[in-house]
Amino acid sequence: MSKPSWQKVAKTAKEYRDASIHRVDPPVPEVPAQLPLDRTEIPKYLLTTEEVLITETQPEELVASLAAGQYTSTTVITAFLRRAGIAQALTNCITELLPERAIVRAKLLDEYYKEHRKPIGPLHGLPISVKEHIGMKGLTLNAGFISWWDIRGEGDAHVLKILWNAGCVFYARTTEPQTLMHLETSSNLYGATTNPFNSRLTSGGSSGGEGALIGMRGSCLGLGTDIGGSIRSPAANCGLYGLRPSSYRIPVEGWSATMGGQEQVVAVLGPLSTSLDGVKMFMKTVISAKPWLKEPSLIPIPWRDQESWLGGSSGRKKIKIAVMWNDRVVRPHPPIIRALLEVVEKLREIEGVELVEWEPHAHDEAWEIISSLYFSDGAQEESDAIEASGEPWRPLSTFIIKENPNVKKLSVDDIWHWTQRREAYRSAYAKIWNDTGTSVGDTGELEGMVDVILCPVGPGAAPPLDCARYWGYTSQWNILDYPALVFPVTKVDLGVDRVDSDYNPMNEKDEYNHELWQSGPEKYEGAPISLQLVGRRYEDEKVVESLEFIKAKIGLPFANFV
Amino acid sequence: MSKPSWQKVAKTAKEYRDASIHRVDPPVPEVPAQLPLDRTEIPKYLLTTEEVLITETQPEELVASLAAGQYTSTTVITAFLRRAGIAQALTNCITELLPERAIVRAKLLDEYYKEHRKPIGPLHGLPISVKEHIGMKGLTLNAGFISWWDIRGEGDAHVLKILWNAGCVFYARTTEPQTLMHLETSSNLYGATTNPFNSRLTSGGSSGGEGALIGMRGSCLGLGTDIGGSIRSPAANCGLYGLRPSSYRIPVEGWSATMGGQEQVVAVLGPLSTSLDGVKMFMKTVISAKPWLKEPSLIPIPWRDQESWLGGSSGRKKIKIAVMWNDRVVRPHPPIIRALLEVVEKLREIEGVELVEWEPHAHDEAWEIISSLYFSDGAQEESDAIEASGEPWRPLSTFIIKENPNVKKLSVDDIWHWTQRREAYRSAYAKIWNDTGTSVGDTGELEGMVDVILCPVGPGAAPPLDCARYWGYTSQWNILDYPALVFPVTKVDLGVDRVDSDYNPMNEKDEYNHELWQSGPEKYEGAPISLQLVGRRYEDEKVVESLEFIKAKIGLPFANFV
Repeated sequence: MSKPSWQKVAKTAKEYRDASIHRVDPPVPEVPAQLPLDRTEIPKYLLTTEEVLITETQPEELVASLAAGQYTSTTVITAFLRRAGIAQALTNCITELLPERAIVRAKLLDEYYKEHRKPIGPLHGLPISVKEHIGMKGLTLNAGFISWWDIRGEGDAHVLKILWNAGCVFYARTTEPQTLMHLETSSNLYGATTNPFNSRLTSGGSSGGEGALIGMRGSCLGLGTDIGGSIRSPAANCGLYGLRPSSYRIPVEGWSATMGGQEQVVAVLGPLSTSLDGVKMFMKTVISAKPWLKEPSLIPIPWRDQESWLGGSSGRKKIKIAVMWNDRVVRPHPPIIRALLEVVEKLREIEGVELVEWEPHAHDEAWEIISSLYFSDGAQEESDAIEASGEPWRPLSTFIIKENPNVKKLSVDDIWHWTQRREAYRSAYAKIWNDTGTSVGDTGELEGMVDVILCPVGPGAAPPLDCARYWGYTSQWNILDYPALVFPVTKVDLGVDRVDSDYNPMNEKDEYNHELWQSGPEKYEGAPISLQLVGRRYEDEKVVESLEFIKAKIGLPFANFV
Repeated sequence: MSKPSWQKVAKTAKEYRDASIHRVDPPVPEVPAQLPLDRTEIPKYLLTTEEVLITETQPEELVASLAAGQYTSTTVITAFLRRAGIAQALTNCITELLPERAIVRAKLLDEYYKEHRKPIGPLHGLPISVKEHIGMKGLTLNAGFISWWDIRGEGDAHVLKILWNAGCVFYARTTEPQTLMHLETSSNLYGATTNPFNSRLTSGGSSGGEGALIGMRGSCLGLGTDIGGSIRSPAANCGLYGLRPSSYRIPVEGWSATMGGQEQVVAVLGPLSTSLDGVKMFMKTVISAKPWLKEPSLIPIPWRDQESWLGGSSGRKKIKIAVMWNDRVVRPHPPIIRALLEVVEKLREIEGVELVEWEPHAHDEAWEIISSLYFSDGAQEESDAIEASGEPWRPLSTFIIKENPNVKKLSVDDIWHWTQRREAYRSAYAKIWNDTGTSVGDTGELEGMVDVILCPVGPGAAPPLDCARYWGYTSQWNILDYPALVFPVTKVDLGVDRVDSDYNPMNEKDEYNHELWQSGPEKYEGAPISLQLVGRRYEDEKVVESLEFIKAKIGLPFANFV
């Protein structure tokens, strides 16, 4: 039997996806033929009032309602299945829905609840969406490659088992780009996933299916993965909360990706959610299961949210925030700077907040190191996986592999060299963190240490398709292995966000980015603007607590996203 | 100027060492011309009564005496300098003494104490000896290679700075083997270091200078390093406590070794001591300094000894110990089995102790994996470092590199392959640990989990020189990254430890080891026998607490070592 053409496989994949959506009951409503650029409002007109209410509820409230018996799991999952189907029609974010298994699961949970009058676990009935390459038993596991379409999950990924034991319902699998190494989401299996707020823009990537689905409120909590920005770019582009945890805190066993055995730059799994509490609930639930007992690469640090990480006298919290306006490689677009300025101005007025400037240290070198270590086999595995089916290279695959001067087949000596460069860079950065604004106290300990860095998530809001070509604002924290939390702030506003014709770009990358904005700011209309809060390695809890503090004090976000 | 011959460099090194010892004041006593095999008693006859008393005091008591002003730091360090000088004459364990800087430091501490009437830090005045390749500013840093003799420490290693800030005194640097990759200690710079208890045997290695020095009580606390047994082999061979901590808990920045950038098997730094409290004091002091702030590879887990790791009802401690008698690759010699049996028999009688059998899982595969990952450049770096000076290959360098079928120059794909094999092996071992003797409790958590594994440290007591050719009993825990603590139990006793002529070796390695004993048990006379307590990754505290519990209950060791 001859191998089917890549086009045939892609057709099969899309038909399989469409069929899964057609099996949702009641059926997913048809979307109008004429669609505005901003599609976030459309589901409101197509679903029942209760369905809109349910799907626009934040996960921590949904869990409380389910635990109180206010909704059945079946009601909740049906609403999300239908809204996810609509989200697919509007943003192309789904690889398949799982209506049958989701309903079976929901009914089981409802019966349990009926019998025991209590939830089965802390996530009883909570719908969770999952990026495709996080394995589910028997389902395709293709990482965006046509040639991997026939690979099936041997079992459920470790993290899914934990969430399942906590009571959740899996119902949707989401798109990802060819190679998983784009900050957008386009593949030859499904095409491109678009931004809910402006369909000419990308939803980000590589967890861009999650970004679009959650942005459309077809999910309230989803699982993504991140080795250079793949959780944070879609969270930022779609007005969501998204955390790249420190390495080795959240299980990754059972995912499918290239670079197995590559440990110089560690990919992580983490949450995207409509709420900060959703992010925290995910981290706490997964870590409480002591995943390190089964997956020995994980570090046995519990989720430490019982004590405050923000030290202040007399029990009042005090926080020192370093603001990084610019990484000195690529200047962010005007709306990003405006959002940062609006946040900083409000923070200035808050008691207990101390602000300092963060001087970026050689972020260009950081990119050189990380991008040399990503594809240390010269991207042989990615190239083989693409070429095995004859599918074309997507533009951003070409960009990150073929046009990337740092992609080389390394020798062992090269790997050791770059690993040592990475460690030296991390040490230099740690020294800056230790030295910025500190003094040595009476006990010899450093005092007045910066708690978190506040900075952009990218050099602009969501870019047009195929234009996400600067990773530095996210990959910077991957090379350092710092936890980084994205949160929504506002939206692009053409009334105030203007072109800046006097700017002289610092280099070629800066010029490319500058031109994106300069050549027509109107294309960014309505795009969410997000910012990033970064902590020291393994201080994930402090980053979350810091954002809780900031949100409570200054009332983020400044715009509505639903 | 032509390069000096390797013999010339070795002569320089030894002259430099001897000169440093000659500068000790009062002078180091001459040792007798005729020496017994067991040399541990000799210093007692050569030193003053007070010097003997001081040098045979355990580190935690010494620190208490110094803090109470009972001894001056100068008195203490002088005693140790003199005993270390004697230890050198008896076991060849020193690369240099540091009399001038030690006395300057001690005087400063004494002045501080006089002025403030309190110690400068928790280790005020404590002498600490250091394996040579842990860098000290301006001093040679050669890792056992003639060609590296001229390399000088650019600064003090991170761990030394922390210990210094805690008040200690550095006074002795100790021997290590060519390549650092022997379980013995022989180099062309200094020759072989011998065992204090039987000079025909090795002191172990690669931290064998520390082993011999502390075994001779020329030190009470020393720093070693371990990538396959290098702390534990000398601790075991010389009747000491020695801990291989989990990776990334103790700083390593500033050491000198081959394989920089190799992270697939992580080398660690840890303590050897005359007491278990010495081990604990080291861990606690170093970790309390939050070394992760300066060395970002370290994991920010505090030293957690405030709560008990041994759970029991009504506050009484309960411990489940798995006993591994044999790794199914190489059977330990009769004295090792006897010591294990003696310990187990006593443990059987203790309330709160539960004993189960540990079934080793594919320890031969573990060796295949770890020894493939050690020298992933095909040992090019070691070969170059040896051959640069023309020095001969020491027999155990030849053994571990040239005669080792797993030493190959790996490609990136090979490294990824072996790294994945390592992870799969770790997962399989974790599953065995989760499954051994456990049941699932009401809350869904595993109950009745094994706390620690009790096992041999090697396939025999200290072997004759050039015969330490089986690493499995120690390297097993390196590949798994489990903390492993060695403790003294008894000594070889030819009255009870007999040959076993009926045994049929399982394989070639087993036969080699069997023959070592079989061909003449008398050569092991008086050698210390030690055992090893192993915990799960990052449960270093539990391992220490478990040994404290066991010691208190059964009164270890069963023989005298001083």
